[in-house]
Amino acid sequence: MFDLLKNSKKSKARLGILHTAHGQVQTPFFMPIATKAAIKSLEISEVKELGAEIILSNTYHNYLRPGLDVFKKIGDLHQFMSCDLPILTDSGGYQVFSLSKMREIKGDDITFTSYLDGAKHILNPKKVIDIQVALGSDIMMVLDECVGLPAERQAIVDALVRTSRWAEQAKLYKSKLDKKNKKVKKQLVFGIVQGGDQKDLRQRSAGEITALDFDGYAIGGLAVGESNKIMYDMVKFTAPLLPADKPRYLMGVGYPENIIEAVKCGVDMFDCVIPTREARHGKLYVWTTGDITKKGFSAKGGPTSGWYKTINLNNAKFTTDKTPINNTNLKQYSRAYLHHLFKSGEPLAMKLATINNVHFYLELMNKIRVAIKQNKL
Amino acid sequence: MFDLLKNSKKSKARLGILHTAHGQVQTPFFMPIATKAAIKSLEISEVKELGAEIILSNTYHNYLRPGLDVFKKIGDLHQFMSCDLPILTDSGGYQVFSLSKMREIKGDDITFTSYLDGAKHILNPKKVIDIQVALGSDIMMVLDECVGLPAERQAIVDALVRTSRWAEQAKLYKSKLDKKNKKVKKQLVFGIVQGGDQKDLRQRSAGEITALDFDGYAIGGLAVGESNKIMYDMVKFTAPLLPADKPRYLMGVGYPENIIEAVKCGVDMFDCVIPTREARHGKLYVWTTGDITKKGFSAKGGPTSGWYKTINLNNAKFTTDKTPINNTNLKQYSRAYLHHLFKSGEPLAMKLATINNVHFYLELMNKIRVAIKQNKL
Repeated sequence: MFDLLKNSKKSKARLGILHTAHGQVQTPFFMPIATKAAIKSLEISEVKELGAEIILSNTYHNYLRPGLDVFKKIGDLHQFMSCDLPILTDSGGYQVFSLSKMREIKGDDITFTSYLDGAKHILNPKKVIDIQVALGSDIMMVLDECVGLPAERQAIVDALVRTSRWAEQAKLYKSKLDKKNKKVKKQLVFGIVQGGDQKDLRQRSAGEITALDFDGYAIGGLAVGESNKIMYDMVKFTAPLLPADKPRYLMGVGYPENIIEAVKCGVDMFDCVIPTREARHGKLYVWTTGDITKKGFSAKGGPTSGWYKTINLNNAKFTTDKTPINNTNLKQYSRAYLHHLFKSGEPLAMKLATINNVHFYLELMNKIRVAIKQNKL
Repeated sequence: MFDLLKNSKKSKARLGILHTAHGQVQTPFFMPIATKAAIKSLEISEVKELGAEIILSNTYHNYLRPGLDVFKKIGDLHQFMSCDLPILTDSGGYQVFSLSKMREIKGDDITFTSYLDGAKHILNPKKVIDIQVALGSDIMMVLDECVGLPAERQAIVDALVRTSRWAEQAKLYKSKLDKKNKKVKKQLVFGIVQGGDQKDLRQRSAGEITALDFDGYAIGGLAVGESNKIMYDMVKFTAPLLPADKPRYLMGVGYPENIIEAVKCGVDMFDCVIPTREARHGKLYVWTTGDITKKGFSAKGGPTSGWYKTINLNNAKFTTDKTPINNTNLKQYSRAYLHHLFKSGEPLAMKLATINNVHFYLELMNKIRVAIKQNKL
């Protein structure tokens, strides 16, 4: 399921291959996000052209709309989206806590109201597995509770305890399903480590979750308001607690420099809305030196660094800028043209910016893999 | 410049080749519209894949934004948009009259306020040529005055007189420019016939405009509020008044059945916002029998006919419809998926719908050309 091919001689960074029901994926990798069963502005064929080998979609959103009835009639998420890439789906837990106005936990049931129409829904560890079985996810995540930071220690402990209990329920339930239906295609199941910004709690959570023997492990509960320093400390501390022969996934991270730091701690998988969301607002990621092995970037996750920068195409200074959008797949368009498209509200603006940013992130991952191969990272 | 290849034995429909500085185009053709220097949601490479051989862009919009300063610094419209297809630009007259809150005609100057910022601008026949020279249009249209229908006869006469005077000024001015700068690439100039819904005025206008010996002729002042019957009567009456060895262009028309009727009167060129605008609202054009030579469509320009129909993807009945969007280039996506994308406000919805509709219109033109070749239209 996961082949570990190489450990860097310079850090804990590693190269591998993750095998899924929809093909293999080189690690470390980044997953462009198809929140509502679509990458914003792009077809899957276009995302593949940019170099994506896997995408992420959101259980919560797909569950609420189009809803399981539609998947039952039309087919799974791959068929619905016409996507032949592997798909990881999150557990929906994060959205339940961040998007729902009302939520209540009783026992193992989370009751919440839909952000679409206010209707009441219930999620629990088993149902989250059922939904992801219906979605046909290549990698499913178990239901967890993610606490925003900073948080009271007791809140972090409570979330940890619940996350471990739910993980066990999910694991048992999935094993039962597998025994019942052996012909079903292989769906990997990942556990999620919580523990906030407390090392002892991270250690406890990692111990409890890895004891359940999942196909891979996510470091959850980061990129939720803490400083980069805390995030790096927690990743550096937690990653080695996870088995070396399983893939490690840092959920929802991040800026390019965040990804590099996490890769150096031994993380293999990433997802983030940054490239697509910022593209829609006209913020483009572009290479400067492009040498990702050099230090010199802002550790604050800020807009500029030594080897890349971001530019805001809404800025008037681009009005007559003949520079190409980038020097690779969008070299035929000037920044002046893209500025004009944003000023004019043309849908093509969003598309070209998204192409640029997703391509940048996928190039970043490629640079990372090359650097690990050469022991430069 | 225009090769007339064949006249149908069944109607006045004809086949030809229009030669432009950016290549040749088979007639009859339809021009997808890049109002603000972009086709809504599509790159030029995608429009070409759909079969487009020429596009239209709007002088008025390009003049106001990005404005001539940008074109002077970045290059012409082809360079700005990264477009290697021929581009026809309209004269801007129609938009001055339809989009500007304030406009005033003094002599040959139209003073108007920009819809963007309220700034005052002046257009006149010479300036409209200058702008289109800067845009590098393959086909430029002279400034005309288009009167909405129904209209008082005197208003139609006034517009006709002004249109003829402006056409003469534009023609003289363009000839002078050509003499000054012989190395400039060939830009075709088309005259526009007005005359509203009055046959004698159409005859007068056609006589005055064709006397100026343009590279092609447009029938203007239609699709501006009149019935299909009046439009067909006017096209049927006016087309034969235009020289057979020059291309004929019916501006702003229309529904598929309108285009077919006009082709049968001897019209060669069309443009319309219908396929792209209706796509954005979820209205898709799809073939039923696809036999365009059969009668049986609504002559009202309505939503359905015998050989095609329109479907509204916002309709709940598509929620679980497994039918492909179309059977050609979007067969991998179900109507249920496109319905979901529209419901979710995904930008991909607009893109897929636009691809469908532009492809439909370009397939329609291909069917028309085949039918003329076989003397079936």
